[in-house]
Amino acid sequence: MKFCSDCAHDLELKIPKDDTFLRYCCTNCNRVFYQNPAVVVGCMPIYEDKVLLCKRAIEPKKGLWTLPAGFMENGECVEEGAIRETFEEAYANVEIESLFTVFSVTNVNYVYMLFKAKLLDLNFKSGVESLEVKLFSKDEIPWDNLAFASIKHCLNLYFNEEIKQDNKTRLGSFKLDKDKTKN
Amino acid sequence: MKFCSDCAHDLELKIPKDDTFLRYCCTNCNRVFYQNPAVVVGCMPIYEDKVLLCKRAIEPKKGLWTLPAGFMENGECVEEGAIRETFEEAYANVEIESLFTVFSVTNVNYVYMLFKAKLLDLNFKSGVESLEVKLFSKDEIPWDNLAFASIKHCLNLYFNEEIKQDNKTRLGSFKLDKDKTKN
Repeated sequence: MKFCSDCAHDLELKIPKDDTFLRYCCTNCNRVFYQNPAVVVGCMPIYEDKVLLCKRAIEPKKGLWTLPAGFMENGECVEEGAIRETFEEAYANVEIESLFTVFSVTNVNYVYMLFKAKLLDLNFKSGVESLEVKLFSKDEIPWDNLAFASIKHCLNLYFNEEIKQDNKTRLGSFKLDKDKTKN
Repeated sequence: MKFCSDCAHDLELKIPKDDTFLRYCCTNCNRVFYQNPAVVVGCMPIYEDKVLLCKRAIEPKKGLWTLPAGFMENGECVEEGAIRETFEEAYANVEIESLFTVFSVTNVNYVYMLFKAKLLDLNFKSGVESLEVKLFSKDEIPWDNLAFASIKHCLNLYFNEEIKQDNKTRLGSFKLDKDKTKN
């Protein structure tokens, strides 16, 4: 962030009047540029006793397994975003059941919102960002080859029989590649 | 969005390679500027049978009542953001109990995450963005003077005895000043 996107003049980092955080502010038109966390939406598609995972075709963590998820877009609601991402990454048709986890990844400013969803058919296949898409039972999940600690934690929660029965949304916070969780 | 914040050259609106959405892209350095929904975090502070509301001191909806909430900041988790905003707007000390509602406000690109929270003491008072801060029982709530449909819906859910008993997170989507909800 060096230049104002409205008038192309220099930005400076300062705390605006009536604010408590440092912001990029334009030295000419005074516009303040707020930077806030981005929402990542996705699904845990369930079919019988199995969960659908995607092997990542892109960095970071290329070749490791994850749940279908991606950035929420303007104009959509969280559930629509989760359904769209699940289709884009795995061509999987799902029906949302409940919001399963909300994880803040504080060192990269992401909020992960992962939904428990019913996989409606077996017509899934790899999207452009996936090398492979596959259903896994608890014992088949590649626990040592999961892309992110948050995804591992989410799957662990799901396969905990006690937790499986309720519909409560689990909260937690992570740092990328460094766990710090609460259920 | 007219100029690149990295190199100050002109931006153009186009769909980048391997993307499906229109984005602002720099005509010089090719940086893509993604625009995504912002997270608004807040609390429904509960004390005995009452909820703490704030009368807004700022536009929009100045003079109308709302729950303490505001934009989540980089570096914090959703719960920390909700606690911070509740203190900034009402000097209220709370303990988070559960994530009560997640509402997408699709025409302004906000995701509201409102927590049920225990108000720990009665040392609340108006923050700079509030004209007045007060506890209300169900019958005392100024139902006709609430700032936002999403807040009205959240309070209605809370005072529904059946819903009050469980810990499920309610989802919904709204357009600003135009209802479209689901529980």
